[in-house]
Amino acid sequence: MYSYQFATRYYEADPMGVVHHSEYVRYFELARNRWLEHVGYGFDKCNRDSVVFPVVRLECRYRRSLRFGGIATATVQIKEFSGAKLTVYQTVLDGQGNLCAEGSVVIGFLDARTGRVRRCPDELAQLIENELNN
Amino acid sequence: MYSYQFATRYYEADPMGVVHHSEYVRYFELARNRWLEHVGYGFDKCNRDSVVFPVVRLECRYRRSLRFGGIATATVQIKEFSGAKLTVYQTVLDGQGNLCAEGSVVIGFLDARTGRVRRCPDELAQLIENELNN
Amino acid sequence: MYSYQFATRYYEADPMGVVHHSEYVRYFELARNRWLEHVGYGFDKCNRDSVVFPVVRLECRYRRSLRFGGIATATVQIKEFSGAKLTVYQTVLDGQGNLCAEGSVVIGFLDARTGRVRRCPDELAQLIENELNN
Amino acid sequence: MYSYQFATRYYEADPMGVVHHSEYVRYFELARNRWLEHVGYGFDKCNRDSVVFPVVRLECRYRRSLRFGGIATATVQIKEFSGAKLTVYQTVLDGQGNLCAEGSVVIGFLDARTGRVRRCPDELAQLIENELNN
Repeated sequence: MYSYQFATRYYEADPMGVVHHSEYVRYFELARNRWLEHVGYGFDKCNRDSVVFPVVRLECRYRRSLRFGGIATATVQIKEFSGAKLTVYQTVLDGQGNLCAEGSVVIGFLDARTGRVRRCPDELAQLIENELNN
Repeated sequence: MYSYQFATRYYEADPMGVVHHSEYVRYFELARNRWLEHVGYGFDKCNRDSVVFPVVRLECRYRRSLRFGGIATATVQIKEFSGAKLTVYQTVLDGQGNLCAEGSVVIGFLDARTGRVRRCPDELAQLIENELNN
Repeated sequence: MYSYQFATRYYEADPMGVVHHSEYVRYFELARNRWLEHVGYGFDKCNRDSVVFPVVRLECRYRRSLRFGGIATATVQIKEFSGAKLTVYQTVLDGQGNLCAEGSVVIGFLDARTGRVRRCPDELAQLIENELNN
Repeated sequence: MYSYQFATRYYEADPMGVVHHSEYVRYFELARNRWLEHVGYGFDKCNRDSVVFPVVRLECRYRRSLRFGGIATATVQIKEFSGAKLTVYQTVLDGQGNLCAEGSVVIGFLDARTGRVRRCPDELAQLIENELNN
């Protein structure tokens, strides 16, 4: 499981003084992109391989509010991988480690130039397999 | 079923030139809030009754990209209502009426002053029941 | 002067219950893009001519808060145009017509394919000149 | 001068693949809030003193595009302080230290409970004076 720590931002909070529910969806993506960077498949490799990762399906359960200004953590855990799709379990925790949201995101693979569906690039597929077997 | 039409915005689009997946979650909320206004329970009544609507759970399936600059439609359809929770089926359609995303959102009710869980206000409960029986 | 009316959105509001100051910058852009559409130079023509409009400089004075949920108006008024740069005066008004923010935005012209500076396309230059002479 | 380093995010980028101009306004605020935290006047003290910081005026000149995915730095430099208003000079730099944007932001002080204008709290006024005299 990969964890990414970050500070929640003032503009992410809504009139109730808590992070707006749409921002968790962005935190999920942020953590996935940081995870890609972390395993050695950052944006330059995405560009080199001309691959982007459309979200095909997402699901999120909100457990507890997150206030702005504090430190939060978003986690990424690979659940399933087929070469055409990747399913990731994700959470957002507050600064005390309380679970604020959890969900799963299914991602596909597109060729960035043509916008067409493609298979996961080999190098990334290998990194995902390693992660699954850990 | 309630439909809300709007123009997608440039800043909502991502480097692929299509609306970012997190924006659909916002379109869903936008359409719910416009629906509340439409049935006669707008922000002043929310304030009067001190009620806010936290999202408890959401689920979204992405079918087709939405380009910025065009007209889109977001729909709201009440599915279940218990007094403590409301489940809504929602879609986003492009200007040609193609289904771009669909999902469901479960909403709770909070007292805006205390942040505590409360029942749906009577006036709104009645409006929701009417909608369900239509 | 061109006016664009729209509803402010819940997620645009901050913990003070008013629209976050960064959203006015987006309202300005929204109104400029609606104005382009209005004068007959919408996104398809931008794509055809491969032109995008980078903001070179912006300035905004905030006069009054805008609450979410209400109707607001953003205006666009051409001030100066040189073929290489366009200066626009913009305002945001609340539902009662009170001035909430005003500012000016200087825009350049880029080739969308190469990212290089270019002159304003002739068709658009003509439309801007017409606007200035009105 | 205070510097805050952060990673630019995918959803902050626009169809040109560069960070949208409205996000710089948010980076400026982010850096100001991190600076407040850094000098010892974080969100708990803001809450304790019931103070919020409305932006009264902002001005930004865009020099160079910032691509998503890289590291950026936002800086904060106090320029003027009167007890009623604070003027800050701010920049955004890319990962190579190139100046991408610079501008100034004028901030006021409001009582968070009443929404009324107030003087800067003494503790913060002292911290700002120290910064100016450094």
